[in-house]
Amino acid sequence: MGTVIRGGTVITASDIQRADVLIEGEVVVAVAKHVPAADHKLIDATGCYVIPGGIDPHTHLDMPFGGTVTADDWRTGTTAAAYGGTTSIVDFALHTKGDTLASAIMEWHGKADDKAVIDYSFHVMVGDMNEQVMNEIPHIVEDEGVASFKVFMAYKNNLQVDDETLFRTLRLASDSGALVQVHAENGDVIDVLVKEALAQGHVEPKYHALTRPPEAEGEATARAIRLAEIARAPLYVVHVTCAEAAEAISDARRRGLPVFGETCPQYLVCDYTDYERPGFEAAKYVMSPPLRDKSNQTVLWNKLRSGELSAFGSDQCSFNLKGQKELGLRDFSKIPNGSPTIEHRMMLLYHHGVNEGRISLNRFVALTSTNNAKLFGLFPRKGTVAVGSDADIVIWDPNQELTISAETHHMNVDNNIFEGMKVNGVPRTVLLRGEVIVDKGEFYGTPGSGKFLRAGKIGRNAL
Amino acid sequence: MGTVIRGGTVITASDIQRADVLIEGEVVVAVAKHVPAADHKLIDATGCYVIPGGIDPHTHLDMPFGGTVTADDWRTGTTAAAYGGTTSIVDFALHTKGDTLASAIMEWHGKADDKAVIDYSFHVMVGDMNEQVMNEIPHIVEDEGVASFKVFMAYKNNLQVDDETLFRTLRLASDSGALVQVHAENGDVIDVLVKEALAQGHVEPKYHALTRPPEAEGEATARAIRLAEIARAPLYVVHVTCAEAAEAISDARRRGLPVFGETCPQYLVCDYTDYERPGFEAAKYVMSPPLRDKSNQTVLWNKLRSGELSAFGSDQCSFNLKGQKELGLRDFSKIPNGSPTIEHRMMLLYHHGVNEGRISLNRFVALTSTNNAKLFGLFPRKGTVAVGSDADIVIWDPNQELTISAETHHMNVDNNIFEGMKVNGVPRTVLLRGEVIVDKGEFYGTPGSGKFLRAGKIGRNAL
Amino acid sequence: MGTVIRGGTVITASDIQRADVLIEGEVVVAVAKHVPAADHKLIDATGCYVIPGGIDPHTHLDMPFGGTVTADDWRTGTTAAAYGGTTSIVDFALHTKGDTLASAIMEWHGKADDKAVIDYSFHVMVGDMNEQVMNEIPHIVEDEGVASFKVFMAYKNNLQVDDETLFRTLRLASDSGALVQVHAENGDVIDVLVKEALAQGHVEPKYHALTRPPEAEGEATARAIRLAEIARAPLYVVHVTCAEAAEAISDARRRGLPVFGETCPQYLVCDYTDYERPGFEAAKYVMSPPLRDKSNQTVLWNKLRSGELSAFGSDQCSFNLKGQKELGLRDFSKIPNGSPTIEHRMMLLYHHGVNEGRISLNRFVALTSTNNAKLFGLFPRKGTVAVGSDADIVIWDPNQELTISAETHHMNVDNNIFEGMKVNGVPRTVLLRGEVIVDKGEFYGTPGSGKFLRAGKIGRNAL
Amino acid sequence: MGTVIRGGTVITASDIQRADVLIEGEVVVAVAKHVPAADHKLIDATGCYVIPGGIDPHTHLDMPFGGTVTADDWRTGTTAAAYGGTTSIVDFALHTKGDTLASAIMEWHGKADDKAVIDYSFHVMVGDMNEQVMNEIPHIVEDEGVASFKVFMAYKNNLQVDDETLFRTLRLASDSGALVQVHAENGDVIDVLVKEALAQGHVEPKYHALTRPPEAEGEATARAIRLAEIARAPLYVVHVTCAEAAEAISDARRRGLPVFGETCPQYLVCDYTDYERPGFEAAKYVMSPPLRDKSNQTVLWNKLRSGELSAFGSDQCSFNLKGQKELGLRDFSKIPNGSPTIEHRMMLLYHHGVNEGRISLNRFVALTSTNNAKLFGLFPRKGTVAVGSDADIVIWDPNQELTISAETHHMNVDNNIFEGMKVNGVPRTVLLRGEVIVDKGEFYGTPGSGKFLRAGKIGRNAL
Repeated sequence: MGTVIRGGTVITASDIQRADVLIEGEVVVAVAKHVPAADHKLIDATGCYVIPGGIDPHTHLDMPFGGTVTADDWRTGTTAAAYGGTTSIVDFALHTKGDTLASAIMEWHGKADDKAVIDYSFHVMVGDMNEQVMNEIPHIVEDEGVASFKVFMAYKNNLQVDDETLFRTLRLASDSGALVQVHAENGDVIDVLVKEALAQGHVEPKYHALTRPPEAEGEATARAIRLAEIARAPLYVVHVTCAEAAEAISDARRRGLPVFGETCPQYLVCDYTDYERPGFEAAKYVMSPPLRDKSNQTVLWNKLRSGELSAFGSDQCSFNLKGQKELGLRDFSKIPNGSPTIEHRMMLLYHHGVNEGRISLNRFVALTSTNNAKLFGLFPRKGTVAVGSDADIVIWDPNQELTISAETHHMNVDNNIFEGMKVNGVPRTVLLRGEVIVDKGEFYGTPGSGKFLRAGKIGRNAL
Repeated sequence: MGTVIRGGTVITASDIQRADVLIEGEVVVAVAKHVPAADHKLIDATGCYVIPGGIDPHTHLDMPFGGTVTADDWRTGTTAAAYGGTTSIVDFALHTKGDTLASAIMEWHGKADDKAVIDYSFHVMVGDMNEQVMNEIPHIVEDEGVASFKVFMAYKNNLQVDDETLFRTLRLASDSGALVQVHAENGDVIDVLVKEALAQGHVEPKYHALTRPPEAEGEATARAIRLAEIARAPLYVVHVTCAEAAEAISDARRRGLPVFGETCPQYLVCDYTDYERPGFEAAKYVMSPPLRDKSNQTVLWNKLRSGELSAFGSDQCSFNLKGQKELGLRDFSKIPNGSPTIEHRMMLLYHHGVNEGRISLNRFVALTSTNNAKLFGLFPRKGTVAVGSDADIVIWDPNQELTISAETHHMNVDNNIFEGMKVNGVPRTVLLRGEVIVDKGEFYGTPGSGKFLRAGKIGRNAL
Repeated sequence: MGTVIRGGTVITASDIQRADVLIEGEVVVAVAKHVPAADHKLIDATGCYVIPGGIDPHTHLDMPFGGTVTADDWRTGTTAAAYGGTTSIVDFALHTKGDTLASAIMEWHGKADDKAVIDYSFHVMVGDMNEQVMNEIPHIVEDEGVASFKVFMAYKNNLQVDDETLFRTLRLASDSGALVQVHAENGDVIDVLVKEALAQGHVEPKYHALTRPPEAEGEATARAIRLAEIARAPLYVVHVTCAEAAEAISDARRRGLPVFGETCPQYLVCDYTDYERPGFEAAKYVMSPPLRDKSNQTVLWNKLRSGELSAFGSDQCSFNLKGQKELGLRDFSKIPNGSPTIEHRMMLLYHHGVNEGRISLNRFVALTSTNNAKLFGLFPRKGTVAVGSDADIVIWDPNQELTISAETHHMNVDNNIFEGMKVNGVPRTVLLRGEVIVDKGEFYGTPGSGKFLRAGKIGRNAL
Repeated sequence: MGTVIRGGTVITASDIQRADVLIEGEVVVAVAKHVPAADHKLIDATGCYVIPGGIDPHTHLDMPFGGTVTADDWRTGTTAAAYGGTTSIVDFALHTKGDTLASAIMEWHGKADDKAVIDYSFHVMVGDMNEQVMNEIPHIVEDEGVASFKVFMAYKNNLQVDDETLFRTLRLASDSGALVQVHAENGDVIDVLVKEALAQGHVEPKYHALTRPPEAEGEATARAIRLAEIARAPLYVVHVTCAEAAEAISDARRRGLPVFGETCPQYLVCDYTDYERPGFEAAKYVMSPPLRDKSNQTVLWNKLRSGELSAFGSDQCSFNLKGQKELGLRDFSKIPNGSPTIEHRMMLLYHHGVNEGRISLNRFVALTSTNNAKLFGLFPRKGTVAVGSDADIVIWDPNQELTISAETHHMNVDNNIFEGMKVNGVPRTVLLRGEVIVDKGEFYGTPGSGKFLRAGKIGRNAL
């Protein structure tokens, strides 16, 4: 006995088909014009799109940062993700100085195991890339099923690595079939600007943005690309926010390089003026890189449409305004960086992208799911509605409206940077490996039922 | 009773699935893990890829040119196409001065009706864009099912139009949901250079190339783009051959414009040095735009991979060396332009692209079929292996080798510009709307069984 | 007995020297630390800059346009020029259909001969580039001393030429040692937009700008450059107004091409919003190309500084608001194009450029005089303060202020588009070939004393 | 009693004048049509160009490097410079760890004082940019007359600084009116590549080039520019060798930034294939950055012509093949970097630039002298033939030929990378502050007579 999703329009990254979907066990076994009811469970999808569950390639759950820890843990974070139509995440396991990569992964398994309500895999966020850690990389790919490594070009005297390390990581990772990600901001420059601002008594949240200029992101992006070019390695640039960085990626792609850029909903619908909100509310928007001048939004949309930006993540990293963001009440540099975005990632892209004619339905699916699966070694198990793939499926109702609010969202945090925004088009029913975990606003998932996904090796022609 | 394609790996523009395909009547009704044999006809695809039949967006069959007519008519041309895995073509109906667009289409129906062994639709190649013809455009889209119009920026005093005409056509077509295509070379410049070369006694075939410099293609491409930008119209640039033109398209895409470029196999595997072949053999390679310096090939491959070039056509336009190309024995400008390429388009892209790691399998499918269907209003009826789509399917054997030769090809022409080249990966079985028309080298199609395809309207977000 | 300019700081396009200048007859014979008084006439230049008289490479005096004729003739126009520190102009002789180039030049000699108070040479503005006219070019260069030819890419059905003509002119001019200038706007596109606007009842002056989009200028500029590239000819682009065109010129220079761009004061200090002035005042600003969005000003300034724009002309073309501009009271397309700018060209560049730190003094001299002389075959007779050069000298007082107004200007026209603007730095004394023609606001020149300057041949390395 | 240079053609960066030059004491006091003989010493310059003495902005004399010291000291180096028409150099004072900048300058004064036969000023090459050193900068500018500071982005674990240091130096220098220079190669990447090559037994000289890819230069150049952009500081990039770096500079100039690039003769006339010379001869060409693929030469020439590259230095740094270069006989990384180029810098630019029509005479003067004086605070005392300027003058004979050879050159080194090249156009007579120091191959200078030049502050609009 299986499940039949009947009457919907199945959308993949390239196709549109009026078809029923038959699920047996955890996987899709048929997409067909008509699947007879037999003794299957029937789910009606009339008038809806049947799309692959979202894959959020960029989340930070239960992560320590600046003396506190994110407001959302794996239970609340993945629950909110599910409400938003996301059925897999790739979370960043934080490796710290003196530690092994393997133990970071082990720690992250511990955080996720009993709590995740959706599937997940890991990137390792390398905190200290020494010789021993580098040598660990091939083993991590082969044995741990983790094949992407994030390196920081910012956060001086903390996570930031030098160019030698980045370059060697690129070569080693590429040889091992892994993908290197960079947080591309020039940490040296930012460090000087931050100290200077504080010395001048500039402590308000907006100085977070003013001390992280877009040129510093453009510089680091271009640098990482050149290093990858010399290393003949693929590269993934997380959270691209501005023309300076996005154009560097386009330049690379013109040279034929396998360079992939990601952007996030906040950079499409929020902007620098949010830092000019009265009082401490601006702290909600403190993230790195910061929100930019509104003119950058058009650049990002154009590149999402044309394919020069390849992925769409949330960079979920939630902190309460009360008690957490407030750590920086008198010093913007102490405001924990990040915002709650995991839940509305897909709805915001759908509303502002598909509804407003900026991107096609296929591109919406590619950006929220398929490309992310391909880039991070999860495809074709994840990222599509196709025979043999996991039955992670969202029944998307294009006609239902939602007003985003911290009052009603499912993240465990007291604020929402999209507060009051309306979206049209929401996930009505969400299936994880064949099981309904969200339906018409009700949650049916089980903490701990999310499975760890081993990432396959990642090639240069992933996309 | 239907047909089951069993045991293959189904490839679409985004997916890869080990699945059986069930065909009922002319369409695919299921893609499934296992389709029971029942009373279906079984086709074994073990070890093969199951891909959508190719769509060649650029052919010239039974077309008059320079006092002669192409060597291949609709029977031989479409038969050769079928052998190459192509199940639909979009051929150019040639409109001539004083004529209506409708009568051009009618004439082309006459050429195709009894002869075509695969499906087809038409572009209209506008020969004389006067007021009356422009007014015909909306009607042609609505009533004739033809939604793309080709305008020439070259062939002075013949097909070439001025910028006013191009601009007005762009606006009108865009308003009507049609797509304008341009042959982008600056005909004025070429006309001067050709006359000058001839005056200097430079009559050999290579002067065809030397009088059509890449800058003249770059110029016209950039101009057409600017006109489309002002007109807020989408644009399709046929046969992009060189960096100058390809970069202009990339620039446009960076500005967010819906501009789409096509290239062809000859520009990827032949080059200017072919014009230096001894004797009159060089005449085989006379086409417009001409073959370019080899350095352009890398540029084109990079853009095929990154998606900055969107389509892959053959520009099939065959002439016999004997009797036809020879018209220009003493004057390169009298050599009929064009070469026989319809048959090997897909194999060449597969061999040099997929086998050599330049593009993925998905991209191969997108370029040879899916994108072309989307750009010319044939999707999702054509261009994919999906429920509800026509069962135009190629069973592609990645392990079979072929040596291209005029001796063995199926085109009705005495030469082949790819003579002697080896490819690995060929179509083993080809189905048109569920019927096997080619199998293991045997042809089972029927002249006249190809159907005309009405093109739907074409949007800015087609891709 | 000569004249000594004593105590000033002599500025050339590259040098700054505290020196006296000795003039004998019409030329400078010495630049020296100290020139003894002897029996020379002494002019005190203490506290002032001693710079070469300005050369305005772009003026239209006594020119018929749209059924009227410019408000300024050669007497009033050159007098105003002299007040502004300009001692030579290159005016456009208008060739008309059916006429020879030689007769156009003869006609222009007739306009200038008895009236010019400063020196002058001619460009020919080719109105009808037929075979016979083309053949005249070498003769014009050799015998008439006119070595620059302007070709129009705009003004459809009037001055506009096709690409064949432009291309052939480029080749022929280049072979003859002449320079081709283009008015670079796509006239075909503009013609369509203008007709359409009028058909919709959009008759106000602002529609002049809205029907001439910057993309149409960018397109034509890029096209002219490509044609010059193929023709291996140098090219001069008049009145560059916008990023689209300026970047095309920068692209060309990157490819190593001898392409030179000119801009004008109005594009640096006025902008599109001037067309939104109430009533018919906006008509004052109607010129082609039109004023652009203010963001273009920074682009132009950057390129003036870096040398990517080479020349600075006025595009003087004055019409009275009363009686002349009013011809277009009910139809923007009938408003005579152009504005009175010959008098304040240098002051505006000095004030906004030098005073505001955007360009150096040397660059100011290069842009207003030296480069123009070099580009149009007048150097070293004109364009510098150096031994053997004509003693065309301006004693520039950097500390004197002027408020621009039609009430006080010396042009014979009832309006000034810079009305009310203040500038700091004005010409105090102006010498033409050693004779003072303006001094502290008084005019001492004589109509008819201006001499025609034969232009020398113009090389690719002019600058 | 003075000196008169009679009958030549005086060339400055912008002018060409047939004039005599009168020198009194050390300076030019007049440039005049005719200077009477009176009791002056007469130098005949008929048929020659009279140009400003060259200013070499980039020399390394008597500099320790890799356990040895350059073959040329201040006597031999400046003597050879004089023979080549160079009358001032800006040499790099090497600051070392633990030292003050002031003491580095003092040390360099000691090397130069008794030996220099031409004038000189200093850059400081900062070896260890710590807090104390940074604080010294304003004092160095004000008190020591040194206003340019070179910072290394290469030579890891030795001279290389991190981005914080570079950024802070840029800000501090800019505030002090000084100019920062960068050696722009990514030292981290190079360090990895060098170690790897050696580990693989790749010890031949060509591996010097293969471990320093052009992308590493392009990266560092782009990075330095972004840092200067954020710091709002001017920037000078030494020895630009390749398209990657040169285009980054052009991009910066398009954004309006005061970024200036220098190239050197070796990058115009030598190329990577010189590393493939048999035996150890290739070691002669080992310099950093290395010689590049020949295709870069056209890029550099185009940018020298268009002004996108601003300066032309020698990067003189001579080592004997015997005994010095041989230190790296079995390890390319031990070959001392550098070549003897001070003597033929101007002749090579003249021959390949002016004679071959790539640049004008004015541009030749600008690149070899004027721009360098302006960029390094020596103008107008140096860099021109003008009233009040030092009488550093070269009488350049455009018709005399020279074959370059180590056998005949005046540098104290056993090799010459331009060996056997012929140039047409050489310095016939060289004056330093009015005194003839070289005449028709004879040397008349005196060690110790060269004077130290205090550099003035350097503005953003230097050029």
